[in-house]
Amino acid sequence: MKTKIFLKQKQLIPIVAGIIAVAGLLLASCNNHSSVGQGAISAQDAAQRVYVAPGQYDEFYAFMSGGYNGQVSVYGLPSGRLFKIIPVFSQNPENGYGYSEETKPLLMTSYGFIPWDDAHHPELSQTNGVPDGRWLFINANNTPRVARIDLKTFETVETIEIPNSAGNHSSPFVTENTEYVVAGTRFGVPIPQKDVPIASYKQNFGGVLSFIKVAPSGDMDLAFQLMMPGFDYDLAHAGKGKSKDWVFFTCYNSEEAHTLLEVNASQKDKDFVAAINWKKAEEYVQQGKYHEFPGTYYDNRFDTSTQTAHSYVHQGVKVLIPSECPGLVYFIPAPKSPHGVDVDPSGNYIVANGKLSADLSVFSFDKIQQAIQQKQFDGEVNGIPVLKFDAVLAGVVKSGGLGPLHTEFDDKGNAYTTFFISSEVVKWKLGTWQVEDRQPTFYSPGHLMIPGGDSRKPWGKYLVALNKITKDRYLPTGPELSQSAQLFDISGDKMKLLLDFPTVGEPHYAQAIPASILMPRSDKIYQLASNHHPYLTRTEKDAKVVRKGNRVDVYMTEIRSHFVPDNIEGIYLGDTVYFHVTNLEQDWDAAHGFAVEGNRDNAELLLMPGQTKTLKWVPERVGVFPFYCTDFCSALHQEMQGYVRVSSPNDHVALTWSTGKE
Amino acid sequence: MKTKIFLKQKQLIPIVAGIIAVAGLLLASCNNHSSVGQGAISAQDAAQRVYVAPGQYDEFYAFMSGGYNGQVSVYGLPSGRLFKIIPVFSQNPENGYGYSEETKPLLMTSYGFIPWDDAHHPELSQTNGVPDGRWLFINANNTPRVARIDLKTFETVETIEIPNSAGNHSSPFVTENTEYVVAGTRFGVPIPQKDVPIASYKQNFGGVLSFIKVAPSGDMDLAFQLMMPGFDYDLAHAGKGKSKDWVFFTCYNSEEAHTLLEVNASQKDKDFVAAINWKKAEEYVQQGKYHEFPGTYYDNRFDTSTQTAHSYVHQGVKVLIPSECPGLVYFIPAPKSPHGVDVDPSGNYIVANGKLSADLSVFSFDKIQQAIQQKQFDGEVNGIPVLKFDAVLAGVVKSGGLGPLHTEFDDKGNAYTTFFISSEVVKWKLGTWQVEDRQPTFYSPGHLMIPGGDSRKPWGKYLVALNKITKDRYLPTGPELSQSAQLFDISGDKMKLLLDFPTVGEPHYAQAIPASILMPRSDKIYQLASNHHPYLTRTEKDAKVVRKGNRVDVYMTEIRSHFVPDNIEGIYLGDTVYFHVTNLEQDWDAAHGFAVEGNRDNAELLLMPGQTKTLKWVPERVGVFPFYCTDFCSALHQEMQGYVRVSSPNDHVALTWSTGKE
Repeated sequence: MKTKIFLKQKQLIPIVAGIIAVAGLLLASCNNHSSVGQGAISAQDAAQRVYVAPGQYDEFYAFMSGGYNGQVSVYGLPSGRLFKIIPVFSQNPENGYGYSEETKPLLMTSYGFIPWDDAHHPELSQTNGVPDGRWLFINANNTPRVARIDLKTFETVETIEIPNSAGNHSSPFVTENTEYVVAGTRFGVPIPQKDVPIASYKQNFGGVLSFIKVAPSGDMDLAFQLMMPGFDYDLAHAGKGKSKDWVFFTCYNSEEAHTLLEVNASQKDKDFVAAINWKKAEEYVQQGKYHEFPGTYYDNRFDTSTQTAHSYVHQGVKVLIPSECPGLVYFIPAPKSPHGVDVDPSGNYIVANGKLSADLSVFSFDKIQQAIQQKQFDGEVNGIPVLKFDAVLAGVVKSGGLGPLHTEFDDKGNAYTTFFISSEVVKWKLGTWQVEDRQPTFYSPGHLMIPGGDSRKPWGKYLVALNKITKDRYLPTGPELSQSAQLFDISGDKMKLLLDFPTVGEPHYAQAIPASILMPRSDKIYQLASNHHPYLTRTEKDAKVVRKGNRVDVYMTEIRSHFVPDNIEGIYLGDTVYFHVTNLEQDWDAAHGFAVEGNRDNAELLLMPGQTKTLKWVPERVGVFPFYCTDFCSALHQEMQGYVRVSSPNDHVALTWSTGKE
Repeated sequence: MKTKIFLKQKQLIPIVAGIIAVAGLLLASCNNHSSVGQGAISAQDAAQRVYVAPGQYDEFYAFMSGGYNGQVSVYGLPSGRLFKIIPVFSQNPENGYGYSEETKPLLMTSYGFIPWDDAHHPELSQTNGVPDGRWLFINANNTPRVARIDLKTFETVETIEIPNSAGNHSSPFVTENTEYVVAGTRFGVPIPQKDVPIASYKQNFGGVLSFIKVAPSGDMDLAFQLMMPGFDYDLAHAGKGKSKDWVFFTCYNSEEAHTLLEVNASQKDKDFVAAINWKKAEEYVQQGKYHEFPGTYYDNRFDTSTQTAHSYVHQGVKVLIPSECPGLVYFIPAPKSPHGVDVDPSGNYIVANGKLSADLSVFSFDKIQQAIQQKQFDGEVNGIPVLKFDAVLAGVVKSGGLGPLHTEFDDKGNAYTTFFISSEVVKWKLGTWQVEDRQPTFYSPGHLMIPGGDSRKPWGKYLVALNKITKDRYLPTGPELSQSAQLFDISGDKMKLLLDFPTVGEPHYAQAIPASILMPRSDKIYQLASNHHPYLTRTEKDAKVVRKGNRVDVYMTEIRSHFVPDNIEGIYLGDTVYFHVTNLEQDWDAAHGFAVEGNRDNAELLLMPGQTKTLKWVPERVGVFPFYCTDFCSALHQEMQGYVRVSSPNDHVALTWSTGKE
């Protein structure tokens, strides 16, 4: 695909970009070991504000991306305590996710089984622009995917792959009523993929933006894609209120460089915010104005009834070409390689965070509509009109900071922006564009998060800065340090630093929601009555072992504190054994585990009450091998064990198992 | 192996064991939602005691087993904050442990690559019976292994497999000067393994206890094993001071039951503590009084110079038979299926925690020595003399609790015991055996931990109860809940509950050490000068791509914010590509990552300054695929990317790469 730039822009000399890049390297300079206090709160007061006494609950659930651990972490605020790691895109030995037969399909892609990904942006489902606590979406940055977590069970229930994309970064932001989850390629790639010289980037590379339809049930389907120039699409946010039919994506590398981007993608003074009218896109699709592109992708759905995930393979995508679809896409010039794009609660203001800038450009949705009507264009790119910068600009925030990355909002008309290079959060006023306060962070914040802070209803009590550099903030743990978050009280005029708390993985974005919304939704157990797993063993008397050729299915139960069966004989080398284990408990938190010695390529099972899970085991030597419950379940947990006897195929040992009645 | 029981014991009727088992099921009864306060401390005071203000450090490092996540977690006390998850026995997507070529050998066993285990007991190395901060050992319970973590780097540097063992639970406790790490089989198995009926347990199953020699360098070698009866060996502790030449193991299932152990292994009133004189064992080994048993096992060592682990395969073990070695082993009768065995700081008192009992039996080392001298025996088992219970008993603690599991000690002559069934910690006095205090825990504690609390030098300020049941303590997260710890202040007469904090994985044992000992040891970076990785790329100009047949080695560097090379062409389907990535940074916490799209069976690399790691990638389709830095490293992190072009073997594309000079 050939990409033509008609836009005339002032070309900054490369050395400017170089200087700014050097500024990035100076991030280590702001590492003074600093105590609480400068935020005008005493340590005594801060301690009271973050302490959640034993037996009391936190006020907010916070969902943090685990970044390169591929998971989502659930924290409580204000305590900063980690409640759960929800495995999403990576195998997780702790509960056998991605190792159990039921969950392996969730990690299937067109490349096959991928045991890892890089999860960046948790996004709560919304109703009328307000987080509603039904689902949490999160993107996979490496092998492009979007996942959906059910907030009743806090488990991953769907992963969908995105074809024609590479580095799914600007995702999975939702439209106001969760009609769509969006996604965008971070890397230009040949579309469809083909073997071309990397140096032919400008001729052969493009970038797609994807719209994934979310059904009322939550099920996702890839609805359509937009074929865009081969820029790097970085972040996105949907409009709300008056702008609810639109989605905004930032991009950098409008230079279309393909090597040493650190310098070569920072040549131009401005890149773009792409404004997309998704209602218009729907119309074009309905009118058939799309192209069928090839593209194989997996949609993996976890069936809560059978407690098993299945993979569905899809072929082909509907692709809209903007030059053929007037009114579908506009480019807004945005200074200095914009990173985050954030929409205020009213839906009128769109903030572009130019990461190599000190200033923030804020655009007005009203002005954008006016400019479109009046055709105030400054050329076009691949048939996409470029709006005149001055015509759509609402204001500029002269922040005094360096390296703005992301902005969120409170419920009092204020915005809060992280500055990576100058290591701070700056509070400023919507409309006046004046800075109201600034507080240092330790160190180098990426995203920040205010509960509901990207929605129509921010709960503006706390702000969490998600820092990329930890250094001297905690007891050292060798060269590898934890990532770090900092909690601020933003209920008053000035931000007050309350707490440093480390995070697992690398936190990118986070979202939070009042506990009062989510807590009543949470399931306590899996009901045995609605467990329709194909290998369910409903009672101990149904336990059995079934051989079909070299496949052995063990229908097994666990209840405090024994297995049925607990002894199995008549297994041979060459068999593949599937242990289908049902936890018969129906009390909250009465978990059991299951593991067998020497299990290559698999881990263990962790079973909540009412759950059935399957562990595959290929015995590799003759003998008698123990299995046991891995979760300390009762005073007689250590006694919860069994044996499986493995014989040579040359021997004859009858298939027998204990019945629990011995 | 035939095991004969000559010991005469009062046989309890099965129904008694049944009743006690039912008591275990009642653990759910003590789940009142309770607030802080009953420990006679206000929430205000407790808040101040646990709050570590931003910029301040915690007082103690706590190392907690991750249980079925296979890892060790590093927490700070008193804040309860999680600083790092150190991967040990399980693959860890967060930093590519077990996915990188350098770390895969650490998960090798005689069964092949095992991606998971169940890690139970962290144990700090000791000098003169005091934790010294050199290493942390931890056991793998499922596929028997012991690991060693270097506390300079907080990384796993060795894993050693234990042959002839199954379920390595009573491990890895150290002798007073870390001469040995001990291990013991939890499950009786045929030794060596063979195909025999499970019902022939008493005839064919045995249990070995293992002694692993620790060299001054830390390197572990399996020195010898003891062939014991086929009981279930549960926990251990070495003596100290006067008892330093001895190690004590608890066992249950002296009934040698092989099915429904919940009932059948609780028939007898007493099982045993095995007291082993390891100095005597050394003499017997030196005299050649051992048998060579078969047994293949892996010892995997991480070489810090080459930053790479290698597997060494060993054959054969020296095994001592107690009946042939007088004075080597004695059995002490211990009531009610003893679980933990704990030795007080003086080394004189050995506490057996009979898990189906209300009372604790405390034995005296002096009395044990006297009984041995005076041959006060009560029969023998497999040639092992059984000491008379009354002759060695120092005292009985009438606790009033139910289900004692573990005991630790402070520096004021007090002991603290967890009671799983009655959900409490009971404080009692050594010597008087009187209960001094009791506090409820929420809920069902397993181990407890006082810093240095199993050593000669307890730092008796805090106590952490490691609870197995969480239920209503935190905001609910669906059916799967976090595990939980509770921090008590034990500096006064009464224990005061300060904080609930959740833990990742399932915490079993934990150990803690003052930050003042460990902090100065911690490395900040890996020195490039001492990096002798065979695929190190020392400078950008040394970067290159080398093909040998179908193997391609990429010598790659990372520094803020670019790769060299960043574009690679001339890779073909059918190749196996090894990306050997070196992080050239030498500033603290200047990490980089590396990942490539669609990488089957592998994850990503997380590279600390000065580190080299290798990711294997088998390209599976033709096209141009991005790779990128996964750790947000600078304001221009998003620009840190590159491409690899994959061609069909039928095409001819020259092997070329960018040099960083373009």
